[in-house]
Amino acid sequence: MTEESLLQSWNEGPAKQSIVEFVRAVTTDGGPQFVKPEERIAVFDNDGTLWSEQPLYFQLEFVVDRLKALSPQHPEWKDKQPFKAALEGDFNTVAAGGQQAILELAAATHAGMTTDEFAQIVLDWLASARHPKFKRPYTDLVFLPMQELLSYLRANGFKTYIVSGGGVEFMRTFAEEVYGVPPEQVIGSSIKTKFEISAGMPVLTRLPELNFYDDRGGKPVGINTYIGRRPIAAFGNSDGDLEMLQWTTAGTGARLALLVRHTDSVREYAYDRGILGTLDKALDEARAKGWTVVDMRQDWKRIYPFET
Amino acid sequence: MTEESLLQSWNEGPAKQSIVEFVRAVTTDGGPQFVKPEERIAVFDNDGTLWSEQPLYFQLEFVVDRLKALSPQHPEWKDKQPFKAALEGDFNTVAAGGQQAILELAAATHAGMTTDEFAQIVLDWLASARHPKFKRPYTDLVFLPMQELLSYLRANGFKTYIVSGGGVEFMRTFAEEVYGVPPEQVIGSSIKTKFEISAGMPVLTRLPELNFYDDRGGKPVGINTYIGRRPIAAFGNSDGDLEMLQWTTAGTGARLALLVRHTDSVREYAYDRGILGTLDKALDEARAKGWTVVDMRQDWKRIYPFET
Repeated sequence: MTEESLLQSWNEGPAKQSIVEFVRAVTTDGGPQFVKPEERIAVFDNDGTLWSEQPLYFQLEFVVDRLKALSPQHPEWKDKQPFKAALEGDFNTVAAGGQQAILELAAATHAGMTTDEFAQIVLDWLASARHPKFKRPYTDLVFLPMQELLSYLRANGFKTYIVSGGGVEFMRTFAEEVYGVPPEQVIGSSIKTKFEISAGMPVLTRLPELNFYDDRGGKPVGINTYIGRRPIAAFGNSDGDLEMLQWTTAGTGARLALLVRHTDSVREYAYDRGILGTLDKALDEARAKGWTVVDMRQDWKRIYPFET
Repeated sequence: MTEESLLQSWNEGPAKQSIVEFVRAVTTDGGPQFVKPEERIAVFDNDGTLWSEQPLYFQLEFVVDRLKALSPQHPEWKDKQPFKAALEGDFNTVAAGGQQAILELAAATHAGMTTDEFAQIVLDWLASARHPKFKRPYTDLVFLPMQELLSYLRANGFKTYIVSGGGVEFMRTFAEEVYGVPPEQVIGSSIKTKFEISAGMPVLTRLPELNFYDDRGGKPVGINTYIGRRPIAAFGNSDGDLEMLQWTTAGTGARLALLVRHTDSVREYAYDRGILGTLDKALDEARAKGWTVVDMRQDWKRIYPFET
């Protein structure tokens, strides 16, 4: 089984060819590069790889909207960083505060409720929020060729995982519907939770404390913690994915490492060596090692499912 | 499909009956308690639930053997607690040192090598170590009726997970072969790991620092972190499993909570309200809530696969 017809939004070219050749190699029973189905693990970054990440990571848009919704109960935020800057949409100032600033914002918007309550807050936001450029729900901004790639890999016996710097409980609210990736195959950053009995019912309460940061070297750590096997295929778009691609390709046998490059300023965005979603060192290493680089403008017939 | 014939080592009685009735209820398509296959999550404690845990948790036997192997390079351990006590097999003294003592022993025996190196150390130990009472490899000391139960649940569309206080990378070395549970479905305690490039190769180095303690309230936390869904069936044997059973049974619809009670001093061990593998509060709650309690002596025709 190869099911290449599933890749209908991919133009013919070296990127599509490298994907198809890899899948044929590892699924050809009796072939020299055959991989047993249980070892066919594929890992995908989310922001910038499976959906857009401009003008701001979508989870940061969620943070801003939550801060606005909660600000009437926090008048002090008007004069206190990083809240002031975030409320004003000034993420250069937030970024200057480093990881501490991000954690303070996460604590104010992601903690202090049960896991069930948080999931409902995210679902409500996804239903009402709109992307500033495309005026559509954020979950419309997924890359159709990558959805096809997920389906194509699964049709060939792969288990597809998300391995993202984004929050695991944020992503799980939509990953199954949008990507066909069930909650147990979503790996992401997390804050700590605590088991408690509240009004006679067991709940998990979200605490304002970082548990795991799933970016850069954290990605192989997360893969090992959650999956316990080395993937044979890895897909990313930025320097935050470099270690995941290094870890994946360091195994023996056929390996596929792929970077999505944002080159289409008309249909999506064009950027690489900028601030957000920086693709710099990973692009150099991709060239040196012959990893696959997708040029969105050239390689993808359609970018979003809603394009006609 | 029900495949009750898989449960051939179970005597007829209320324990087997509650299992079979639960599985029939959640797999009867169109029935009032039907559960979609993707929601059929079953979680199993390991020590004392899937294999024996006496006279000492098997991973503690591994610790002792590792300490002995490493002691020539650590002459100071002869006079230093908790090493002195552990080398003498005196775990009452170790236990008196609390979690700190356990962490010191774990750091000395489980950290300072790569993940691949650690897995090989465990595999070598499993191949050579023998249980003091049964004079067999520890992986022979698994409960045949529980292996059958795992197979029976999987034959009915369940995804079976291990959720144990034991080390995740310790258990993953044998869980697939012995229980049919793949690495990505093993949840356990862990120490931190760090991604590094060593001699040009990416490795994960194991650090002497606790990452996650998967016992008591940690079990629902681990389930939520790894799986992101609430199980519908949970299996344990001690107070360390109580919160997992509470979390599982707090969901709506049909639920199965089961405790294995060690009542067979001849074929295995008889204990409950003792020190190791204490079954006390959980037994009271099982009785109050009507959870299933397995009496090993009465309910199991055979305990170990090697019995004739």
